Amino acid sequence: MPGTGERRSTRPIGVALLGLGNVGGGVVKLLRDNAASIEARLGAPIEVRAIVVRDPDKASRVVDVDRALLTTDVAAAIARPDIGIVCELMGGTTDAKRAVLAAVAAGKHVVTANKALLAEHWAEVFGAAERAGVDLYYEAAVCGGVPVIRALREGLASDRVEALHGIVNGTSNYILSTMAATRRPFADILRDAQALGYAEADPTLDVGGGDAAHKLAVLVNLCFSTTVDVAAIATDGIDVVEPVDLDYAERFGYVIKPLAIARDHGGAIEARVHPALVPSTWLLADVAGAKNAVYVNSYALGPSMYYGAGAGMLPTAMAVVSDMIEIGRNMFARAAGAPRPPAPVATPRAMVPMADVRTRYYLRFGVADQPGVLGQLMTILGAHGVSIAQVVQDGAPVTSGDPVCVVVLTHEAREGDVRAALAEIERLAVVRTPPRLIRIAGEMESASARSRLGAESPT
Amino acid sequence: MPGTGERRSTRPIGVALLGLGNVGGGVVKLLRDNAASIEARLGAPIEVRAIVVRDPDKASRVVDVDRALLTTDVAAAIARPDIGIVCELMGGTTDAKRAVLAAVAAGKHVVTANKALLAEHWAEVFGAAERAGVDLYYEAAVCGGVPVIRALREGLASDRVEALHGIVNGTSNYILSTMAATRRPFADILRDAQALGYAEADPTLDVGGGDAAHKLAVLVNLCFSTTVDVAAIATDGIDVVEPVDLDYAERFGYVIKPLAIARDHGGAIEARVHPALVPSTWLLADVAGAKNAVYVNSYALGPSMYYGAGAGMLPTAMAVVSDMIEIGRNMFARAAGAPRPPAPVATPRAMVPMADVRTRYYLRFGVADQPGVLGQLMTILGAHGVSIAQVVQDGAPVTSGDPVCVVVLTHEAREGDVRAALAEIERLAVVRTPPRLIRIAGEMESASARSRLGAESPT
Repeated sequence: MPGTGERRSTRPIGVALLGLGNVGGGVVKLLRDNAASIEARLGAPIEVRAIVVRDPDKASRVVDVDRALLTTDVAAAIARPDIGIVCELMGGTTDAKRAVLAAVAAGKHVVTANKALLAEHWAEVFGAAERAGVDLYYEAAVCGGVPVIRALREGLASDRVEALHGIVNGTSNYILSTMAATRRPFADILRDAQALGYAEADPTLDVGGGDAAHKLAVLVNLCFSTTVDVAAIATDGIDVVEPVDLDYAERFGYVIKPLAIARDHGGAIEARVHPALVPSTWLLADVAGAKNAVYVNSYALGPSMYYGAGAGMLPTAMAVVSDMIEIGRNMFARAAGAPRPPAPVATPRAMVPMADVRTRYYLRFGVADQPGVLGQLMTILGAHGVSIAQVVQDGAPVTSGDPVCVVVLTHEAREGDVRAALAEIERLAVVRTPPRLIRIAGEMESASARSRLGAESPT
Repeated sequence: MPGTGERRSTRPIGVALLGLGNVGGGVVKLLRDNAASIEARLGAPIEVRAIVVRDPDKASRVVDVDRALLTTDVAAAIARPDIGIVCELMGGTTDAKRAVLAAVAAGKHVVTANKALLAEHWAEVFGAAERAGVDLYYEAAVCGGVPVIRALREGLASDRVEALHGIVNGTSNYILSTMAATRRPFADILRDAQALGYAEADPTLDVGGGDAAHKLAVLVNLCFSTTVDVAAIATDGIDVVEPVDLDYAERFGYVIKPLAIARDHGGAIEARVHPALVPSTWLLADVAGAKNAVYVNSYALGPSMYYGAGAGMLPTAMAVVSDMIEIGRNMFARAAGAPRPPAPVATPRAMVPMADVRTRYYLRFGVADQPGVLGQLMTILGAHGVSIAQVVQDGAPVTSGDPVCVVVLTHEAREGDVRAALAEIERLAVVRTPPRLIRIAGEMESASARSRLGAESPT
């Protein structure tokens, strides 16, 4: 054991990797390539001592590893006394959950990139980690290599998050960005993305919003000290967006982005995942391609944004390795008798029902080309308390008898009222296609941030 | 003293604040308002035990503090055995340097927001801290509350920064943003900004680029493990920008932003501060008002960006408090015998001479309205190896005899060649006003990042 203050590190930290796919391979590569700078940061080396794989005899791997490190035995790898950190990169919520709980029970710290596991079993896995007195870190679970979890966690100690808007699914952002650039329809772009390996064979979790909902649940639990039911997050996929919606959005000064939105209403939490019109001058509007970003409004800092690669071997691996380094520092601190911080309070909070959410709306109608139709639509919307900000009705259809397009941008309205108006409108004889609804999102600077603007020098 | 693993924290960390202006007041307020969450994060409370002020009897302060905490005696406050962290918020480079070196010599950890001190005396203050075995943290010195120093430092352990583009001076960004919105001239906007308290009475350090150069030196020293001479950073102020330049920039698809740019060329370092045309679709183009952002290109993560309030009482105080929490964790780790990480290597690196920097240029000429002039300009540029990407020559002047405006956008060229061409052009009889040069900047994704895009799923 080293003497206190000795400069040469002598206490390597042993790691077991559960999984050696792209991210696992990236972790091995980064730990190997950056061994010196990691040791410089931590004061001790991090050593991979066991790698659990399905088939140790597999011929080709992402990185070359010593065959002696490979094993199929999760339990044995976790149990080794020379393993301090277990890194779960298996994915899924069954075997992965079992492995994480086993690691925690064995007193091992855990790093995971598994947002589904955290979103669905937050209370259970963090409760187990708390009881066992171990750390559970998950920077790679949201926005890959972008250090947004770190920024929120460190900031939270002396700040308070009020709202967040995230682009957290790279596939959805890639598809909508490509649609914006080419105006090709959703299905075509998805097919090409699948052929290129940019989208999964089953794209449901990405384009349907489920992946984003998992990530939003993780962010909400972290930022608002709660435990939300991920199934209660209102989730719409991006497949409702058609190229014509991008044309109209552009005419009004908007682009369409796949957003995950959360807001602390004091009592209840608002959380939703859906494509949204965002002002083209807002920072999130320029988060293009497969990139991710989270735009945060907080009490002390005001608005801030964290942007970068949400996936990929090296970005994700970098986040995992950063977590290992932080856990290593915690291990030394605890060994010194630093009291373990109290468990974060996770107060159950109600979710604002989607019908009670208030926001602005883009509504597109296909209606018969005849006098009085616009009046009928406006009357019904008005009767439901939905106030209109802008309307566009395009000229006569190319083919006589085809429906014409009416697009309405509303002021802030209650979702339930908008839905009731749309149901009534859809029953009109003059309405030829189901009304299309896309919500509008924008920057909501906190009152505290706004008041600060006048009070402080911007130097 | 607490037992190991005990959950109630019993080892408060004592802090001496040197200065109680806006930031100092914010620190007192955040430590007070968030005492519970800070203790939760750190496992111990942070207590302000001494505050050094010029006049303890001053009637009005940013926050109410116990009169017994106030002192005028820097040395005595530093020397107190119950002080673990000295927080330097005095500003300037004379008294502040003396205080920081005294704190370090007394074995105290230091938090500072003083970019000028760090930029001008990096090697001396970090050398002293290293010899004394204490931490010196400075998140608030660059981009206020945006956790960019933390992101770069933590990321650096397993990544490598290749280039960065920053908007790091809020006053300059505010003035250019206002010019973009109103097309009013620089001097008018500056006068109003001074009246509103948005710019200093002597704005030289902000609008001349000196403040940004200090911050860039800090970022360069951190990211590239070096020690640059801040005086060697080529620095142009934003006062060269006129509203007409914004008009032309817009026609070509650009906006003008106050940038700090650095790039690692392997051997030498490129570092420069100047206003620049940036593509209006780039993220940095939408960093408006007094906000700050740093756009980073690194090997593992690819491009990433960190955005938020670069100044203000609470954002800056939040960064200071986050540093205190991190130092507190280090203190516990060291007490446990965690080896202190080796000092970061600071290899002296040559600076690329500005004449050898290669970039693209926006050039504006006021020339006589007569045939052949455009040809003369193009010939001279071509003779110096400066290749033209786009040219606009506006029609006849309003008043006959007035010069007409020619604007040229070049391909990438060597600065020395461009300057030589401009000197020659300026001597032409047909040239009526000194040529105006503004550099063009844009996203430079690293080759590694580009190659990753094709290889990885964007999920």
